[in-house]
Amino acid sequence: MKTIVKGIDLSNAVNKVVKAVSQKTPNSLLEGIKLSCKGDELTLTATDMEIAIEKTISCETFMEGSVVVPGRLFAEFVKKLEDEDEIELNVTEDGRMKIVYSGSETYLQAQSAEQYPIIKKDINLNSFVIKQKAFKDIINKTSFACSQDDSRPILKGCLLELEGETLTCVALDGFRLAVCKKTVRESTGNVKAIVPARALVEITRLIEHDEEYVTVIIQDNSLLIDIDNTVFVTRLLEGEYIDYKRIVPSSYVTVFKVNKASLFSSIERASVMAKVMKNIVKLDVHENYVDVSSDSEMGNVKEQVLINLEGKDVSIAFNSRYLIDCLRVIDDEFVNFNLNTSIAPCVIKPNSDEDYLYLILPVRISQ
Amino acid sequence: MKTIVKGIDLSNAVNKVVKAVSQKTPNSLLEGIKLSCKGDELTLTATDMEIAIEKTISCETFMEGSVVVPGRLFAEFVKKLEDEDEIELNVTEDGRMKIVYSGSETYLQAQSAEQYPIIKKDINLNSFVIKQKAFKDIINKTSFACSQDDSRPILKGCLLELEGETLTCVALDGFRLAVCKKTVRESTGNVKAIVPARALVEITRLIEHDEEYVTVIIQDNSLLIDIDNTVFVTRLLEGEYIDYKRIVPSSYVTVFKVNKASLFSSIERASVMAKVMKNIVKLDVHENYVDVSSDSEMGNVKEQVLINLEGKDVSIAFNSRYLIDCLRVIDDEFVNFNLNTSIAPCVIKPNSDEDYLYLILPVRISQ
Repeated sequence: MKTIVKGIDLSNAVNKVVKAVSQKTPNSLLEGIKLSCKGDELTLTATDMEIAIEKTISCETFMEGSVVVPGRLFAEFVKKLEDEDEIELNVTEDGRMKIVYSGSETYLQAQSAEQYPIIKKDINLNSFVIKQKAFKDIINKTSFACSQDDSRPILKGCLLELEGETLTCVALDGFRLAVCKKTVRESTGNVKAIVPARALVEITRLIEHDEEYVTVIIQDNSLLIDIDNTVFVTRLLEGEYIDYKRIVPSSYVTVFKVNKASLFSSIERASVMAKVMKNIVKLDVHENYVDVSSDSEMGNVKEQVLINLEGKDVSIAFNSRYLIDCLRVIDDEFVNFNLNTSIAPCVIKPNSDEDYLYLILPVRISQ
Repeated sequence: MKTIVKGIDLSNAVNKVVKAVSQKTPNSLLEGIKLSCKGDELTLTATDMEIAIEKTISCETFMEGSVVVPGRLFAEFVKKLEDEDEIELNVTEDGRMKIVYSGSETYLQAQSAEQYPIIKKDINLNSFVIKQKAFKDIINKTSFACSQDDSRPILKGCLLELEGETLTCVALDGFRLAVCKKTVRESTGNVKAIVPARALVEITRLIEHDEEYVTVIIQDNSLLIDIDNTVFVTRLLEGEYIDYKRIVPSSYVTVFKVNKASLFSSIERASVMAKVMKNIVKLDVHENYVDVSSDSEMGNVKEQVLINLEGKDVSIAFNSRYLIDCLRVIDDEFVNFNLNTSIAPCVIKPNSDEDYLYLILPVRISQ
C-alpha cells in the first residue's frame, strides 16, 4: 500500500481506535492497528476480540493494500505528526512501514494483515434509534454498578432490554443494583442483550453530539454502533441474566425524601472518617431528620440532615461508596429513600423521575 | 483552644501546609498539623523536619491554645467544609478536637502540641530581594537536573550562590548540569547555600504574583521565605558542592545554531522509537543540517533539521530525556549547541540569553 493522509486526520483516527488495541496477548497481531487502503479511504482497525473500533478517513491512494503496525507505538508517533500537512504511508518491499513527512523518513516494524481478524459489520437486523444524550445517560447511570471481578463474568455486563419503545439498562454486582429506562425513537422489535460495561463506557466516549440520534444494532452475539465514520463493535456476554425484578421490594415501611446535595455532602464527610472502618456510614432515620454518622479510631462524624418522613424510624448502615456512586449520578434536587428493616435492601429513586432506581444492600452492624 | 474560622480560609490554609506533613515517620506528631490560636490569629504549621510551612489566618478566638490534628485526614475533611461560613474548632477536655458547623459536631483524634517541633523563623541576617517571576524561573530551569537518588545526597539540592547582584542556581546529577543566573534587586551581601530541590519546587507553587518581589532569607542551616502570610522554611544541605565551573569546557570545535521547536519535535519523535533502546538518540552534525536518528527493533527514525554550523562535523548520541528536559525549559526561538568530540560534554545555550547553560554528557555508541 501507498497513500497520503493529513497529519491531524491520521492522529485523530489512531487515537480513537487505539483504545481497542489489546494490552497483552499471545497474538501479537492484536497489539497492532490494521491499516487498510482502498479507493480514497484509509480504514484503521483495532480489536482485542472483545471490542473492535474501526475508523475511516479520506486519503490519496497510490497503491491499495493492508498492513498491521504496532498499535501503541504508532499512536504515540503519529501524535507528534499532527501538524504535518501530508504524511505518506508506504509499505516497503521487505514489509516495513515507511512513514514520510517533511522530507524525513521513519521505518516501523510491521506485520502482514492477512491473519488479522475480520470484524463482523454486516449486522443490521435488530436495531433501535435513540438520542445520543439518552444513550449516554442510561449507561452513565448504571454501568458503574457492574461487577469488577471475574468471579461471575455475566455481572461485568449491563443487561440492555428493549420492550416496545422502552429501553431498560440494568447493572448489578451482588451488593447493589441500578436500573434506568429511556424511550427510543424507533426500533425493529424487542431485543435483549448483555453488553460488557467496558464497551458501553467506550461508546459514551465516542458519542459527541448529544442532540443527534444514534442507531444501535444488536444481532447474534454482537452490538454495533456507527458514529461519524467510526464503527464500534462489541461481543455480547452469553448466559442468563439475574431476574433483577425479584430483588426489588414491592412495599416499604419507611419512605423519606431528602435534599440530595445536603445528604451527599454529609455522607462524603462521614466517609472521610469511615475510611479506616471499611467505609461504613450509618443512617438513623427519625421523624424530621436523619443522623448521618461514622465512627473510627481517628474520629467520628455525626450530622443531621432534614427529611420528610412517612413511616417508621429505622437505623441502617451502608458502604458509603455505594451511596456516593448513586447520589453522584442523580440530577434531581430531591431523592427518595425507601426502606424496610435495617437488614433489608434500600431503594433510592430521584424524586421527580420514575425511570431510575438504585438498590443497595445494607451492612449489618451491632446496635 | 476554642476559635471560629471561615470554611474557605481554613481549607485554603490546610491545603497549603499539608504539603509539609511527613509521609511516614516514627514520630506521629510529624504526621499532624499544629493549630495554634493566639489573639485573632490561627496559625497552622506542618513540618517533616526538612521543610516547614506555616500559614496564618484570621479567626475569632474564645480561648487561646494549641493542638496537633492528623494532617491528611484533617485536610480531606476540611476540604468538604469550604462552603461553611463558620467553623468552630474546640479542644475538648479529653483532648479531642471538636469541629462544629451548621449544627453538626465532628470529633477528631488529637495530640498535645507541647512536643511539636519549633520552627525557626527568627532568621533575618542574610537576605536578598528578587522578582517572584525570576525566582520561579531560576528554579524551573535548573531543579529538574538534580539527582533523584540518595547515593550522593548533596546532588539532591541546588546550589544557590549570590555574588553582588547576581544570583546563580546550579543543579547537576552526574550526567548533566544546569546553570541559571538572575539579577536580584537588593541584598545584604554574598551568600552560598545548597537547597533541597524538592523545597525549591514547593516554593514555586507558593509564588503566585509574578510581578511582585519576594525576600529570600538564608542563615545558618535554613532558607526562609514569607509570602502572603505563608512562611516556608527549609533546612539546607551540608557539605561541599561540586566545583561545576571546572566541568564546563572553555572552547569548542563545533558550534551550531538551530530552531528550538524543530529540533524538539524531531527529538521527541526519535525518542518514541528509542524507548526500547535506553532512549538513545543520535545527532549527526553536517555542514547545513543535523540528522536526528534513533534505531530499535520496533523501527527507526531519521530526520533532517536545518542548522547554522561553525566548525567540524561530529556524530554524538544522548539520552533523549536529558535533551528534552533542557529544550522544554528554554524559551528562546533558537538554541546553540557547543561540541568538541563525540565523547566530550555538549553545552546547550539559548541563542539570545547569556544567563543559561545546560551541559550533557554524551552516551558512547559503537560507530
